Amino acid sequence: MRSIFRRRSEDTVIGPGDDAAVIGGLSDGRVVATTDAVSVERHKTPNMSWEQFGWTAAAVNFSDLAAMGARPVGLLTAMSMPGDMEESDLLDIASGIDQCCEFCKTEVVGGDTKPGPGIVSSTALGNLEGRKPMTRDGAQPGDIVAVTGSLGNAAAGFLALENGHTEYEDSIFSLTVPVPRWEEGIKMAASGAVSSCMDLSDGLGNACRTICARSHVGMEIEWEFLPIGEEVEEICALCRKDVKETVVRWGGDYELLFTFDKSKIQDLYDAGVAFSIIGVVTNDSAPYLCDGEQRSEMQDGIY
Amino acid sequence: MRSIFRRRSEDTVIGPGDDAAVIGGLSDGRVVATTDAVSVERHKTPNMSWEQFGWTAAAVNFSDLAAMGARPVGLLTAMSMPGDMEESDLLDIASGIDQCCEFCKTEVVGGDTKPGPGIVSSTALGNLEGRKPMTRDGAQPGDIVAVTGSLGNAAAGFLALENGHTEYEDSIFSLTVPVPRWEEGIKMAASGAVSSCMDLSDGLGNACRTICARSHVGMEIEWEFLPIGEEVEEICALCRKDVKETVVRWGGDYELLFTFDKSKIQDLYDAGVAFSIIGVVTNDSAPYLCDGEQRSEMQDGIY
Repeated sequence: MRSIFRRRSEDTVIGPGDDAAVIGGLSDGRVVATTDAVSVERHKTPNMSWEQFGWTAAAVNFSDLAAMGARPVGLLTAMSMPGDMEESDLLDIASGIDQCCEFCKTEVVGGDTKPGPGIVSSTALGNLEGRKPMTRDGAQPGDIVAVTGSLGNAAAGFLALENGHTEYEDSIFSLTVPVPRWEEGIKMAASGAVSSCMDLSDGLGNACRTICARSHVGMEIEWEFLPIGEEVEEICALCRKDVKETVVRWGGDYELLFTFDKSKIQDLYDAGVAFSIIGVVTNDSAPYLCDGEQRSEMQDGIY
Repeated sequence: MRSIFRRRSEDTVIGPGDDAAVIGGLSDGRVVATTDAVSVERHKTPNMSWEQFGWTAAAVNFSDLAAMGARPVGLLTAMSMPGDMEESDLLDIASGIDQCCEFCKTEVVGGDTKPGPGIVSSTALGNLEGRKPMTRDGAQPGDIVAVTGSLGNAAAGFLALENGHTEYEDSIFSLTVPVPRWEEGIKMAASGAVSSCMDLSDGLGNACRTICARSHVGMEIEWEFLPIGEEVEEICALCRKDVKETVVRWGGDYELLFTFDKSKIQDLYDAGVAFSIIGVVTNDSAPYLCDGEQRSEMQDGIY
């Protein structure tokens, strides 16, 4: 199994094959670590290839590192897949994991493979390289709220698939090949402008609520400012789904939600991060979505 | 869920509740990491409590850190347990994980809980504090082969249980509450005497074969030297199992197998590690078990 995982990182002092891996280069004496499991039952949509399933298993973890501003320096992966699975399918999962590691300029440093019911649990390790980690609890009233990328694509991809509209390839691709924003995360943390950050894996509403709760603040998010994905409105119309509900309450977009001190906006531009401003941090205690005269509290995820 | 995990470590800069954990104090710029999954189906013997299952999920990972000589500095744990499981059972698993962390003077720093088929995947992080990691590839002809603790207890416990002999409580306890040798591992690595090390989770035969293969050496293991657990011979007789087969080919003992330079034996004694010498490293290419006139190649695990 392991031979498919390529060596490409100078951070790895001891890679797979011993009792444990040793990762070096942590010059500030800290390591960032996060774990997340994906299961065939819950995460593998019918059209998703085994390679894409493997990519996703790795990507969800690298996205968490991105939200802290850490550079990926290794992935450990524990696979519990059915004993009767085709070996080529297992190799495809491994290949997908490896491709996502390559995208993040890191590698698989350890793992465990056992027969099991179809779960891939991975742990990503990251190096802050002296940067202050971006947490969820630092948002201040008056800060600006922003996101990377565009919103609602994964949800729209899911709806398109569910309703047989396979022509919406871009949205479906967003769903099946989530892109961890690791370079953006590093640049954002390095800028010194960001006061809080979280990824959108559980939806925009969930992320806004979490940062508000952890930072003891509120938010006013402007509906008109949201960078909705290109196909989202069309797919929602086709599938008779509410666009707001889809964009706010569905997860699966691995973009970064963050807040920053507005006096430092130039530092963020200088860092070369592409982002959209979507609102402001307030003295309130929850996030609100504002659309003209309408103002409603943003709700948690439903997906 | 997470509230049951107690804070007790100064290494944790950011614990559970953010996108990822941050662990500090890695003064030599390295982190040791290992991942291992346990499943209800394969690892929870009928008599094992949920607390013991949780302990085991953590212990198997700390044992891998021990084999490298790393001090545990955090555990991440991804639980995928059935949605209809009693909450008190889930709390018992968490409590078992937490107790094992306490035994290793560390804590749960992150995790992920989702409904799933009954898998707990954990990742343990360790600090070498400047020590050279003990790997599997450093054994040299002429070195001494040794083990911590006694052998065959977990296998005997399994046999006793399988045959209804629940009176063998010590062996059964060895099976259900494996003790990671983390303090021994640190002392062994610090002594500077150890040339290779591996834990016995997959059996003595497997560990000897692995070190021989990775170090390109052979071993002569003396049957008479093996520190067989107290109840092992009695249980094997009762269950009509071969003692040698049970001791060599069954796993589940979380002791450390290691080799050391015999000129440095005093350093090992000075380090305060209790161990038994079981053989020598040779120029051969595989491990052999010697019992009087008999000499046979040690085989891999069967359990």
